[in-house]
Amino acid sequence: MAKFNPRLYFITDSTKYEKEEFLSRVEAALQGGVTLVQLREKERTTREYLELAREVHALTLKYNVPLIIDDRLDVAMAIDAEGVHLGQSDLPIGIARKIFGLDKIIGATAKTVEQAKEAYEQGADYLGVGAIYPTTTKVKTILTSTDMLDKICHAVPIPANAIGGLNKDNIDVLKGIPIAGICVVSAIMKADDPKKAAEELSEAVKNKLGF
Amino acid sequence: MAKFNPRLYFITDSTKYEKEEFLSRVEAALQGGVTLVQLREKERTTREYLELAREVHALTLKYNVPLIIDDRLDVAMAIDAEGVHLGQSDLPIGIARKIFGLDKIIGATAKTVEQAKEAYEQGADYLGVGAIYPTTTKVKTILTSTDMLDKICHAVPIPANAIGGLNKDNIDVLKGIPIAGICVVSAIMKADDPKKAAEELSEAVKNKLGF
Repeated sequence: MAKFNPRLYFITDSTKYEKEEFLSRVEAALQGGVTLVQLREKERTTREYLELAREVHALTLKYNVPLIIDDRLDVAMAIDAEGVHLGQSDLPIGIARKIFGLDKIIGATAKTVEQAKEAYEQGADYLGVGAIYPTTTKVKTILTSTDMLDKICHAVPIPANAIGGLNKDNIDVLKGIPIAGICVVSAIMKADDPKKAAEELSEAVKNKLGF
Repeated sequence: MAKFNPRLYFITDSTKYEKEEFLSRVEAALQGGVTLVQLREKERTTREYLELAREVHALTLKYNVPLIIDDRLDVAMAIDAEGVHLGQSDLPIGIARKIFGLDKIIGATAKTVEQAKEAYEQGADYLGVGAIYPTTTKVKTILTSTDMLDKICHAVPIPANAIGGLNKDNIDVLKGIPIAGICVVSAIMKADDPKKAAEELSEAVKNKLGF
């Protein structure tokens, strides 16, 4: 199985693209060095989500990168994805862990130390923490301070990623916080050249955050 | 486990009701003799669907009636529901059967003999066939003739139910077709007295359809 590494975690957004263009952007991101991919679909039927997930999974398998399915454990199980990401409006982590098994990756969203501890205790493998900056990807954005991010990183022994409006020019603010990686949507998805964008983000993580 | 009997299959629609009113209508339907209940939610988050499913399941268990979850295998597994119903936009039946197990009920929607045979071959336990009459429950309704319903009933060895705009006054049209039961939403859900509506439907099935 592809190794779990949340260092440069690319979360997709297919809403603006035809399928071929979308898949080509995902593949470019993989070529540019993203270490983890999440397929996030909110508007599709289950069957459409499943079919797109299969195609994205074929790409991530080719580059040996785990694929995480947002929200839908049924879709994740149907394509035998490596993981599922569960926000506060999705299935509880503990229930998903029982159904999905111990060898699968389960990610959680946490905005507070309490949510982080609960997710960890229920069996989450990693946390997404944010939004650090305002984002256009979600309708309602509740910001999380870098102080809170730092507290969460120190409160639980699982990797935590920063998320929300991050790009190569604004990640300095995360310096010194023991995050495991950054999550990005737009910085890669909407880039003129997603491969180059992923490469530059990877460089920025190395140069500015030191890992 | 509650015995599977699709004779009077009540499909819920919670969209017009506060939760307490909705649950009280579901319980009234159970008191009135519905033999199978499907929870169908299209607009809720996964967590909301799960929480409502748990409450409905507590009611159906009390009346020893199986609960079928529409579309969402993850929600069905999370509450250990007796079954899941999968339409043509949902997970394929064969995939769901592998994940959900052999002892669970899996229902399918079929509008043609081809769809019916495919669902049966993939492991469906029953079929919903319609819409026999126009319905207000779904945005787009494609009608299925009673001739087609009859053909489907004869084409596969699993029970088939008629669905779509059915009520106690218009089911005569199904007479002589070897259906296993009828599915209703509005005829019970929107009734002034859902218990009485279920009782009257049960009587009508007996008197007009002979089972």
